[in-house]
Amino acid sequence: MTIDFPAWLQATQAQAEAAVERYLPTESTGQETLHEAMSYVSVGGGKRFRPLLAAAAARLGAADADALSAAMAAIEYVHVYSLVHDDMPEMDNDSMRRGKPTCHIQYDQSTALLVGDALQTLAFDVLSRPVNLPAMQQLKRVQVLARASGSLGMAGGQGIDLANVGKDLTLEQLQHMHSLKTGALIRAAVALGGLSCADVSETLLNALDVYADKLGLAFQVIDDVLDCEQDSATLGKTAGKDEEANKPTYVKLLGLEPARAQAIALAQEAKAAVASYGEAADALLGLADYVIQRNH
Amino acid sequence: MTIDFPAWLQATQAQAEAAVERYLPTESTGQETLHEAMSYVSVGGGKRFRPLLAAAAARLGAADADALSAAMAAIEYVHVYSLVHDDMPEMDNDSMRRGKPTCHIQYDQSTALLVGDALQTLAFDVLSRPVNLPAMQQLKRVQVLARASGSLGMAGGQGIDLANVGKDLTLEQLQHMHSLKTGALIRAAVALGGLSCADVSETLLNALDVYADKLGLAFQVIDDVLDCEQDSATLGKTAGKDEEANKPTYVKLLGLEPARAQAIALAQEAKAAVASYGEAADALLGLADYVIQRNH
Repeated sequence: MTIDFPAWLQATQAQAEAAVERYLPTESTGQETLHEAMSYVSVGGGKRFRPLLAAAAARLGAADADALSAAMAAIEYVHVYSLVHDDMPEMDNDSMRRGKPTCHIQYDQSTALLVGDALQTLAFDVLSRPVNLPAMQQLKRVQVLARASGSLGMAGGQGIDLANVGKDLTLEQLQHMHSLKTGALIRAAVALGGLSCADVSETLLNALDVYADKLGLAFQVIDDVLDCEQDSATLGKTAGKDEEANKPTYVKLLGLEPARAQAIALAQEAKAAVASYGEAADALLGLADYVIQRNH
Repeated sequence: MTIDFPAWLQATQAQAEAAVERYLPTESTGQETLHEAMSYVSVGGGKRFRPLLAAAAARLGAADADALSAAMAAIEYVHVYSLVHDDMPEMDNDSMRRGKPTCHIQYDQSTALLVGDALQTLAFDVLSRPVNLPAMQQLKRVQVLARASGSLGMAGGQGIDLANVGKDLTLEQLQHMHSLKTGALIRAAVALGGLSCADVSETLLNALDVYADKLGLAFQVIDDVLDCEQDSATLGKTAGKDEEANKPTYVKLLGLEPARAQAIALAQEAKAAVASYGEAADALLGLADYVIQRNH
């Protein structure tokens, strides 16, 4: 590897943070609390994994800086909106997230509902502002994010999850649920990174999609492994909740060590999909290792 | 007036109904309940006022049929998503809507949360599918809807509303709240109708915006008048709730008859803004009268 991955990671997380802050509304005309809460849940937290993926993918072409910034922010806004709504009492009823009180605890449920709604809208707002890319490609970016987030993507995975609490899923069913609930947005992040480059080819987009598909699955398997292993303090969210709610997990289906081995194999497959792109793919390779090695 | 307005209204409501049904997801892979609930809240209800406005505005140019259909559906999905979330216990806690149980009553709160989220996404999905319009214009349509729906538009108005329950607002503050909460989406509906025509001019879009701005305000004033006058049976939703929750209304600030007179004056101003477009504006003129004359 020719990039200094830890340095790239640090610089790109700062870039993600700046992108997330950049588009948040700064002026209010009576909706100060809403805007403050949108900032509370968005700024200064999380690994920024999806923006990192977008930035890593954008290294494979000549990325437009504003287009990449918009992609990084939009994908994170969708992710954060989903966390805010998932944490609400009618969903997972979580009180801590990213080491601080969840939105409905810090504010109230009506504000949390509205914050999630407005962050989703902001994602599409940001992605539809003209940047230095062909208009058709910008429209495709909106389409990619919408398909990944909706009832055939992330929200659909959430729907499947809701429909199966307390039920035994097969490995295939579990994988399908996660491919929508988590995988779809990870694939969108990588695609939006690629689509920040006016010179992106279909071949490259296809290779990126294989990478993202495998990595998204590895990410989820490791998430289950971590949830099983870690305590609340290290994880920054309420641990052991999945088991508590009798939700299906890879660890339950495969066992702890086989699940970890599966994640490692998937990360290898992800890396293989983009290996032919040489040094430009270094950040993508580094992120695949990062997923396997992370402990929170 | 040279169109048969009642016939136009009936035909266009059917067209709106078809547009709303057209883009709803039909195949499920485990999220059947989510898709069923999305259909439950979207199909067969309401006046379809926003799609009607889009269709009326599209008569001022050479509209692309698919572009107009997408606009009619997208704007209604956003409207319906906002109703589903507004009806939830943490917001208005309404149990009836459009003459049937609200989503969280018919299903449950987690489903209602997810249905609203997924309908918002679907709106942007639909609007970003390629149609026979310049790509830049399609991108502008996405931008128009996003700005109108987010924290500087509809969601922002909702935020202002939440921040002022139980407080006395001035007429100016009340108008500002409604210009975001209700007005922004009405303006977007009219703009999206105009933007369904590849030949739309800036001059026309400006005239349409004045029309929509005035009509949106008239609509809200009449809503307050109706809420004060009607009982639950006629209105199809729980009436008198605004007064109950001590929410500010035009009727409270102006009195019943002055409020009605104000609405009539606003509708006249709306009509004046597009009168110069002749017969092509007939449907817009008819809708302005319809707003004043409606009783539910």
